[in-house]
Amino acid sequence: MDFLTDNVTVASIIAIIASVVGLAFAWSQRSWVLSQNAGNEKMTKIAGAIQKGAQAFLRREYRAVAVLVVVVMIALIILGLIPDSGMSPWTALAFVTGAIASGAAGYGGMYIAVRANVRTAQAASESLNKGLRVAFSSGTVMANLVVSLALLGIGILFIFFTNVLNLDTATAASALAGFGFGGTSIAIFARVGGGIYTKAADVGADLVGKTELNIPEDSPQNPATIADNVGDNVGDVAGMGSDLFESYAGSIIAAITLAALSNMNIAAEVYPLLVAALGILIGIVASFLVQTKEGATQEQLLWSLRKGVYGASAMVAVGIVALGLLLDLGWGVILATLSGLIGGVLIGYFTEYFTSGSYKPTQQLASSAEGGAGIIVIRGLALGMLSTLAPVMIVVFVTLFASWAGGLYGIAVAAVGMLSTLGITLATDAYGPVADNAGGIAEMSELGESVRDRTDALDSLGNTTAATGKGFAIGSAAMTALALMAAFITAVKGGNVIPDTTFAAVLLEPKLITGMFVGALLPFVFSALSMLAVGKAAQEIVAEVKRQWKTIPGLAEGKADPDYETCVGISTDSAIKQMILPGLIAVGVPVLVAILTIVGQDNIIGEFVGSETLVGVLIGSLITAFMLAIMMSNAGGAWDNAKKYIEGGYLKGKDENGNEIVYRKKSEPHKAAVVGDTVGDPFKDTAGPSLNILLKLVAIVALVLAPLIYNSLELDGVNSSTNTDTTITTEQVTPTPEVTPSVEVTPES
Amino acid sequence: MDFLTDNVTVASIIAIIASVVGLAFAWSQRSWVLSQNAGNEKMTKIAGAIQKGAQAFLRREYRAVAVLVVVVMIALIILGLIPDSGMSPWTALAFVTGAIASGAAGYGGMYIAVRANVRTAQAASESLNKGLRVAFSSGTVMANLVVSLALLGIGILFIFFTNVLNLDTATAASALAGFGFGGTSIAIFARVGGGIYTKAADVGADLVGKTELNIPEDSPQNPATIADNVGDNVGDVAGMGSDLFESYAGSIIAAITLAALSNMNIAAEVYPLLVAALGILIGIVASFLVQTKEGATQEQLLWSLRKGVYGASAMVAVGIVALGLLLDLGWGVILATLSGLIGGVLIGYFTEYFTSGSYKPTQQLASSAEGGAGIIVIRGLALGMLSTLAPVMIVVFVTLFASWAGGLYGIAVAAVGMLSTLGITLATDAYGPVADNAGGIAEMSELGESVRDRTDALDSLGNTTAATGKGFAIGSAAMTALALMAAFITAVKGGNVIPDTTFAAVLLEPKLITGMFVGALLPFVFSALSMLAVGKAAQEIVAEVKRQWKTIPGLAEGKADPDYETCVGISTDSAIKQMILPGLIAVGVPVLVAILTIVGQDNIIGEFVGSETLVGVLIGSLITAFMLAIMMSNAGGAWDNAKKYIEGGYLKGKDENGNEIVYRKKSEPHKAAVVGDTVGDPFKDTAGPSLNILLKLVAIVALVLAPLIYNSLELDGVNSSTNTDTTITTEQVTPTPEVTPSVEVTPES
Repeated sequence: MDFLTDNVTVASIIAIIASVVGLAFAWSQRSWVLSQNAGNEKMTKIAGAIQKGAQAFLRREYRAVAVLVVVVMIALIILGLIPDSGMSPWTALAFVTGAIASGAAGYGGMYIAVRANVRTAQAASESLNKGLRVAFSSGTVMANLVVSLALLGIGILFIFFTNVLNLDTATAASALAGFGFGGTSIAIFARVGGGIYTKAADVGADLVGKTELNIPEDSPQNPATIADNVGDNVGDVAGMGSDLFESYAGSIIAAITLAALSNMNIAAEVYPLLVAALGILIGIVASFLVQTKEGATQEQLLWSLRKGVYGASAMVAVGIVALGLLLDLGWGVILATLSGLIGGVLIGYFTEYFTSGSYKPTQQLASSAEGGAGIIVIRGLALGMLSTLAPVMIVVFVTLFASWAGGLYGIAVAAVGMLSTLGITLATDAYGPVADNAGGIAEMSELGESVRDRTDALDSLGNTTAATGKGFAIGSAAMTALALMAAFITAVKGGNVIPDTTFAAVLLEPKLITGMFVGALLPFVFSALSMLAVGKAAQEIVAEVKRQWKTIPGLAEGKADPDYETCVGISTDSAIKQMILPGLIAVGVPVLVAILTIVGQDNIIGEFVGSETLVGVLIGSLITAFMLAIMMSNAGGAWDNAKKYIEGGYLKGKDENGNEIVYRKKSEPHKAAVVGDTVGDPFKDTAGPSLNILLKLVAIVALVLAPLIYNSLELDGVNSSTNTDTTITTEQVTPTPEVTPSVEVTPES
Repeated sequence: MDFLTDNVTVASIIAIIASVVGLAFAWSQRSWVLSQNAGNEKMTKIAGAIQKGAQAFLRREYRAVAVLVVVVMIALIILGLIPDSGMSPWTALAFVTGAIASGAAGYGGMYIAVRANVRTAQAASESLNKGLRVAFSSGTVMANLVVSLALLGIGILFIFFTNVLNLDTATAASALAGFGFGGTSIAIFARVGGGIYTKAADVGADLVGKTELNIPEDSPQNPATIADNVGDNVGDVAGMGSDLFESYAGSIIAAITLAALSNMNIAAEVYPLLVAALGILIGIVASFLVQTKEGATQEQLLWSLRKGVYGASAMVAVGIVALGLLLDLGWGVILATLSGLIGGVLIGYFTEYFTSGSYKPTQQLASSAEGGAGIIVIRGLALGMLSTLAPVMIVVFVTLFASWAGGLYGIAVAAVGMLSTLGITLATDAYGPVADNAGGIAEMSELGESVRDRTDALDSLGNTTAATGKGFAIGSAAMTALALMAAFITAVKGGNVIPDTTFAAVLLEPKLITGMFVGALLPFVFSALSMLAVGKAAQEIVAEVKRQWKTIPGLAEGKADPDYETCVGISTDSAIKQMILPGLIAVGVPVLVAILTIVGQDNIIGEFVGSETLVGVLIGSLITAFMLAIMMSNAGGAWDNAKKYIEGGYLKGKDENGNEIVYRKKSEPHKAAVVGDTVGDPFKDTAGPSLNILLKLVAIVALVLAPLIYNSLELDGVNSSTNTDTTITTEQVTPTPEVTPSVEVTPES
């Protein structure tokens, strides 16, 4: 396939064509959505207010961000013009292009979302399937805008840099990083600003509406209702769009940069572009798989969306294999890409498991509400911490596998693979807020109950896909960040220019970084388990106290003594029983890693686990345990003292007539403070302090086992031949000649 | 001072003597406390129940842990006996000694605490000063047990290993690590088990007592009251004791190990022992500074405790300078030790700032309770996240400064310095639970109101010192973990045996690890700011909605339309305004580090900030942003769905008569679930998703600036001479000859 691998032009053109097809599809979907019935006058009026508010916000936001974009652009131009700065002034062009493309994707996605919401409500009054089609079509507009504009920008810039400006690919790739930076600059403000907007409006509306004015959610009497609906769009649609725009562009850029900096062959440079192009085209095909029949259950609705995602994944997988063979990149690169693709699907699955009401974790969370506000908050936090386990371990496995199969480049293409189906996964995700808005509009316009039932079904489905989508967004962001980091270290430390392995080899060692992830997990899992243990043990105490009040005559009247000892015994039993698991995990993980390091010296295990893993676990657990411990201790202490502050009569407020009142025990603020204190108690007294030990435990276990590890490395000749096992190479595909720099150790004086 | 530096024996003997003095002081304080009046019959009965429960728990806990200790011991012996394993079988001996010493310190501290509580209550009925003295004396018993047993164990083992077994100091130091491991094995279970116990009893007692039985806190009618009081002792006294035992021992062992492995002179090996010995003796002197006069205010009470800590710190600082000069270690090591000492005091101060009701953060937290349970929970979490800033930055500065002044050894002695005043800081900390218990006993025994007022004052003071103590415990744990990590990497990668710099030089680079800390901070600070922004913006919405209801005629009756646009405008304004700070921090920190890297090439700045810092920021933010993002998204999603699950009528419970009931909207569990959802909303829709961008932002900024950094490094000849700037050396004190191994880069195939 020489025409593809002679230079990057053909592949860039293919990418551009795929993007244009994607844009055309987005346009056709947009036109179809807009051609739908927009409902009665009341509905159009409400929808009009939402449209106006959303667009006003985006305009204001973009105006604010534009200042930053211009400042950064000027800075980049100046840096690029300074002689010997090493930066290309064209980075500034890529930056502005990225910012504009990301902004356009967000704006376009929101434009259609605020018009699809009312049409979804109207369509739902006709049939469930039609409602689903309208909302989902709006999602596909957004998704295709994101992937197409990202790939289009990269394709055009790449051709411009290499063909018009005749930059070498390494410089072109480096300037291309500006495109990603532009996208991120928009994204950070879109996510933060949109996030604040959406929750401020929501929380504010709820607070005053439910507690003070006594009007239902989404009541048209609440002045903040429209702001609440606007929030759904600016946060979840525009924000999510620019977030994934950046991941998508970032992963492709990282892969190209790594290929270019490491002097890999042209095939490695064009491969990410072609995988992305393929993904766009397949995403379009797969979006036609999404439909359902009337009266579908929640499972059937979910399955209809899943069909699209799974179908696209299967087709893309076949395409990746074909592409890899066609470009002669070898199975290493193919498998690395596939591992990312599969990892993305798995992350989505586990996110659903932890957050959907159809599975145990959320059901148990609901049951814990019987224990009161504090208990469900604690349990939810614990659940959140525990849920880090699956996605982080999936990223760990994908990283280890991809780098084993394809080196650093493998990590980057794994990220590309994970994001290759974005055209359809983002569509299912962007569908959520449209369905949510549709429900709100149906409520406010007082449509019939059957319509409301349908929009409820669509909305509930949207919550599930939104959660899955969030998980996918986080996982792919982490993979992209890893890929970008690899590209950065390669770039700073010389890449092909001056091979400097000391720094790069160590930090680019996947065992180290994955070890850090595992280490970072430990404090989260450990805290989660200890907080859950408190809840369980407290339940046993409650049951026993109730039993005594029922069975001991005179106790309730204060005439008989309770049986304190049984309570002490129960506390003792359950504390001892429940400390075992977290304790063993803390001691066990470093020991397990050490054992794997030693037994893995001569075999495949050593490719994935080594002394670098143990160092990584050490560093990772140190970092997150430190942060979490401080946060938990201080939050707990502050809640406790805030409660005491109120009890001391220091908190003053105003009553309805504007007179000053002092809040005391049993006042509403005091009750709220008690909830805070209940959350804070296991924070500051169970999980937080235990983390101190974890901090040191991992380090001390490592230190104790150090001679063992050192010796096993020495026996295998690793130490004497200086670390060949830790040398990671980006030259998986086309090895460069060996280099032998000398390292000097100069003691500082 | 040849007699001190000829061999380690003299210093070990001095350490042993200081420990024995400390133990004797602890014994005299114990006798004094026990000689105090234990109050009336009712009080003795209550105190007896607490004593029995606490001792039963510790016995059960130790029995459970003993199994683990024996298993680990056998494993260590086997590993030590395997030929060529590199481990000394004496590690097992050190391990068991450490476990026993840590257990004894915890047991002894608790023994006196459960006897001092009732005597404090009785003494408080005489005078405030007397109550303070009794409670504080009990704290000094505990504190001196911890430091003395730790130093005694290290001193005796060290003499035994070097003089009786004639091990070389490197092997002796390596075996000594087992002592720390033994301490940690106890600590992990003491902290987790004690933490679960204390909060299970507390939460359980509160839940059933306040909400179901309607009896006040600490009521003798509640069967769980005694368990609650037992919990204070097993969690805060025994757990805290074994925690700090481990930090204290770990820091000394790490310093000795680094000195021994790096072939530093004997002075460097004996210095940590002597600093610790000095700290014990000064702590005893300083504890006499703690007293107060009758009718003292809260500030005066606090100051009386502070006098002890600050006095001890000042004296130890003088002693450290004298010792360093005496041993001829140079100002580098002295300053490193002092930086740790000062850092510890500062961490305590900032912890107090963030958690005490005397300062703004907690007061504002209390005010936020007016917004309801969800709001105060969110704000408390945000406050906790924000409060990571000070301690982490202090540890960053101490690490950078100490390693600049004294290399890796400097980091270890900074940890030793921070913990050198433990004899007094732990005493003020262990005082808290005793005062707390005294209050409970006074309440249960129905002592007079004036007594209760005094115990309340003592208790409230105890809350403050407990928070400060927790901050100190976390900070010193992090420093100790860093020191242990440095010792581990030095040990695994050869130390003086085979100088292998590739791995060790990079990972022991303080710029890298401190960069990671700064990076890890970013997601916490960023999330905190965005969550606080939601609160602020929501308040504005609430005010506007109220204003409209007051001023628009007919709105409340549903006859007039509200002014939606103003609400939309307010949301827009405040979201735009509040997105600036978090956004700028996210973009600004990596840019700032990059700028410092470039300008710091030829000057002092380069000693503390470099491209390694930027890589560290990248890795650190990647790790914590990934974890936090998953946790927040999933917890938010699960709370949301748990609420919906209840609303759907899936949650069933039993009413008082045991009949099944279905919980719906407005039921108590539903209200609790709404609180969870309110906390989850900004988690999953504001902070969580914004973290995705942060993940990539830091990486992409770094990548964009990569050519700049690369070029500035190249111009300065750093890249061509391969990294002399990143070479960290442990040979600060006695440089070893230069070594020049060659590094081979072997591309994997």
